[in-house]
Amino acid sequence: MPYVNIKITREEVSKEQKQQLITGATRLLADILGKNPATTFVIIEEVDTDNWGIAGEQVTERRKKGL
Amino acid sequence: MPYVNIKITREEVSKEQKQQLITGATRLLADILGKNPATTFVIIEEVDTDNWGIAGEQVTERRKKGL
Amino acid sequence: MPYVNIKITREEVSKEQKQQLITGATRLLADILGKNPATTFVIIEEVDTDNWGIAGEQVTERRKKGL
Amino acid sequence: MPYVNIKITREEVSKEQKQQLITGATRLLADILGKNPATTFVIIEEVDTDNWGIAGEQVTERRKKGL
Amino acid sequence: MPYVNIKITREEVSKEQKQQLITGATRLLADILGKNPATTFVIIEEVDTDNWGIAGEQVTERRKKGL
Amino acid sequence: MPYVNIKITREEVSKEQKQQLITGATRLLADILGKNPATTFVIIEEVDTDNWGIAGEQVTERRKKGL
Repeated sequence: MPYVNIKITREEVSKEQKQQLITGATRLLADILGKNPATTFVIIEEVDTDNWGIAGEQVTERRKKGL
Repeated sequence: MPYVNIKITREEVSKEQKQQLITGATRLLADILGKNPATTFVIIEEVDTDNWGIAGEQVTERRKKGL
Repeated sequence: MPYVNIKITREEVSKEQKQQLITGATRLLADILGKNPATTFVIIEEVDTDNWGIAGEQVTERRKKGL
Repeated sequence: MPYVNIKITREEVSKEQKQQLITGATRLLADILGKNPATTFVIIEEVDTDNWGIAGEQVTERRKKGL
Repeated sequence: MPYVNIKITREEVSKEQKQQLITGATRLLADILGKNPATTFVIIEEVDTDNWGIAGEQVTERRKKGL
Repeated sequence: MPYVNIKITREEVSKEQKQQLITGATRLLADILGKNPATTFVIIEEVDTDNWGIAGEQVTERRKKGL
């Protein structure tokens, strides 16, 4: 009964891509640990680029620099 | 000083229901563990049905099937 | 399919009390929002008192003061 | 490679304040533990006041009382 | 710069399996969303079976029943 | 009433350093957003180096390489 939480920046992730993340993460837990997909949760959280910092800098600013 | 985080799908949960979840969770920690309500936090996070997967499938799709 | 995460300080919580928290949180989500217990997860995380701060102070120190 | 998650109520936090939180948290981990800013993540999550409870009460209601 | 948090029950997961989860989750984010592995974090949290409930029941008890 | 969760690798962090992280994070929220320290929570989670991956690799292995 694993719980997988994926946090990514909110930058035009499609519904299909989200489904692919859910499928992939569920399969990963089944393949490596034999976990039952029926009780595997995957929760994707999209975070505004103003609200995510790396290297002390907002992702919003990093994107402007092409990072 | 407990911290309770409740994640649910974003599906028309009313302000009153949220208050009931907060009241109930706070009381639970007081009743079972004697925790002080004054320093009990309850945070409710509503997750889009596209962003929540169970059994390898988006909740959006499960709802269409009546699941 | 709710997910409930309860963080408390690690201070001699018994297995029975944990079961009571699980029962109570699962029932709360069923009662207020009609959520299915079969797919309700409750995860309890116990945090060392050195690792939890409130009011800028470790809980370890607060306990010494009777707080 | 620390990960810092800051949850606050959604109450008109500016982009500049978010940058200051990111800068401050990144510096804190560098100063105290010598962590490399290049691999320090800071994620700010803003939570609606209806969805945050303290002392068993929604923050929305507390704000009306001037709390 | 994704952040992936995997919570599983603490039940004899080997170091190699953990590496496989890390590899798989990192690759998933790279394959589906083009995310850079260099700034992808994967954090695995192992939770005691007394501390994880599903269907209102501790996993410890479920394991005794062969669930 | 902010909530700050700091995840770091479990690598000999002292009780004093934890207190410094708590003090620093609490002050940061007070300074930038005017948040009341009395209801600011800081929770530090230490994660085994086998359980933390970056760049697709366990931190345990990275430490052996001097990274």
